[in-house]
Amino acid sequence: MNQPKQLSGVFAPVITPFDADLRPDAARLIRHCRWLLSQNCQLAVFGTNSEANSLSTDEKIELLDALVEAEIDPARMMPGTGACALTDSVRLTAHAVKRGCAGALMLPPFYYKAVSDDGLFRSFAEVIERVGDARLRIYLYHIPPIAQVPISHDLIERLIAAYPDTVVGIKDSSGDWANTEGMLKRFPGFTVFAGSESFLLRTMRGGGAGCISATANINPAAIHKVFAEWQSPGAEDLQAGLDTLRGIMQAFPMIPALKETLAQFAGDPDWRRLRPPLDELTEDQRRALTAALSAQNFAMPGLPVLQEA
Amino acid sequence: MNQPKQLSGVFAPVITPFDADLRPDAARLIRHCRWLLSQNCQLAVFGTNSEANSLSTDEKIELLDALVEAEIDPARMMPGTGACALTDSVRLTAHAVKRGCAGALMLPPFYYKAVSDDGLFRSFAEVIERVGDARLRIYLYHIPPIAQVPISHDLIERLIAAYPDTVVGIKDSSGDWANTEGMLKRFPGFTVFAGSESFLLRTMRGGGAGCISATANINPAAIHKVFAEWQSPGAEDLQAGLDTLRGIMQAFPMIPALKETLAQFAGDPDWRRLRPPLDELTEDQRRALTAALSAQNFAMPGLPVLQEA
Repeated sequence: MNQPKQLSGVFAPVITPFDADLRPDAARLIRHCRWLLSQNCQLAVFGTNSEANSLSTDEKIELLDALVEAEIDPARMMPGTGACALTDSVRLTAHAVKRGCAGALMLPPFYYKAVSDDGLFRSFAEVIERVGDARLRIYLYHIPPIAQVPISHDLIERLIAAYPDTVVGIKDSSGDWANTEGMLKRFPGFTVFAGSESFLLRTMRGGGAGCISATANINPAAIHKVFAEWQSPGAEDLQAGLDTLRGIMQAFPMIPALKETLAQFAGDPDWRRLRPPLDELTEDQRRALTAALSAQNFAMPGLPVLQEA
Repeated sequence: MNQPKQLSGVFAPVITPFDADLRPDAARLIRHCRWLLSQNCQLAVFGTNSEANSLSTDEKIELLDALVEAEIDPARMMPGTGACALTDSVRLTAHAVKRGCAGALMLPPFYYKAVSDDGLFRSFAEVIERVGDARLRIYLYHIPPIAQVPISHDLIERLIAAYPDTVVGIKDSSGDWANTEGMLKRFPGFTVFAGSESFLLRTMRGGGAGCISATANINPAAIHKVFAEWQSPGAEDLQAGLDTLRGIMQAFPMIPALKETLAQFAGDPDWRRLRPPLDELTEDQRRALTAALSAQNFAMPGLPVLQEA
């Protein structure tokens, strides 16, 4: 077998559009994915910011099929495939491999809390063994603020030792740079993605692979520029630009703010819809977000516009 | 329509047996349910202690069908039907109603944290509207230590006001007596179940309906006795007996300890299996549990025994 190709670059956890009945809207998703790809941004569909955990496994499989059938390149896709139920994780991961996805971003099972590393090891191991496909590449998904089930460095070490060709990387959404840095030092050759572009320059300097970040949904080209030019003299200034936009978005609930931004810039109010338990921005929040983006002359170049605002 | 019949009594979140391939084992589950019913214990299948969130929706639907087809009375069942994904909650809840289940115990969607009461209201409301069946009776499931998404009293008030014939009760697994007491006082006529038998006597004295408790899987008759005789002079002593057994079980991880107990007393080692991320007890823990139960002369009267130990 050839050495597995490692993924790198900038990925968006692609936000998921819904129709009036709150069904996933494949056509809008395909349109958004095409734009992201055109901006050098790859596709971590079914991430936290995709509201993936508000979708059933069937819905995710149907969306993935629709994307691949629309000729969105699966080699640029890293779908989230980890679920609470072992059988859901196995089914979706196997499907992602079968459709040719370059990687699977895998949450630990997240309902039961304070579980052991042994239990988490068995969770990942059962998925790997049951999928049973040498093409599988797992990127672990460490997001303790939301999943409330962390992935420890000792667990990572055990997984790499047991499945060196399969467990190839991680997305670190801890928000804790010391954790990212610790992994970069402890696991040479392991593919580490920052969970936000705030840490992109530091991650690249530390030997990381890029970032998988919410705001890549709306600011992909600028984030990719930091990835591509991190060794250039202007890299700090480019990073500062990212930080400014991040600061604006973080003043609002992230997922509705991303959807609001896309709704406004694409002239497509249907993008505002969220599945419960998430809420749309309030009118006041909308106005504040619009004003803040406008003050920065924020733009989404090349974005297909449905109707002028 | 007749006034809906309120559920009351003692329910077990029925532990789920798995075969060697970690598939749910319907035959063993049916056997355990029959024993529980024989002990005056009703069936909250698919609860936290059932490892329900380690099962896919398809697996839960198949198990529920197997139970009903085995003539386990659905009027004595309150399956857990709340999931992260709206579509999973709707599908399983609709199926439970269709099969005649007396109630549905409903977790809030639990992946996204710090969500608003508006968002949670919409979650429950969407399930109710989409199921669209006047027979539906929802018991909310408040378990902040695990779900990390609490159900506030203000949210309960809104749900009762909007759906008075549907949102009829709650299981309080907060472990916080003040919360249970607050609901009993604020919502007369609302069916409040304690989330553990530790609070059973207090809950009955406060006007509650009973309890839904892990240890009812192994100690159902004694727990039911407190429910049935809470007004008797000996009630405090009966409650003290429950507390002793609870104390023993709480010294171990609860779900594996319940399974270990059943494995030992039913002479059926297959009961020990858990789906990851949960682990079986260690050998030391097994020995300590056996010794502690033996010191109390713990017994499971009437339990069918597969093979003598």
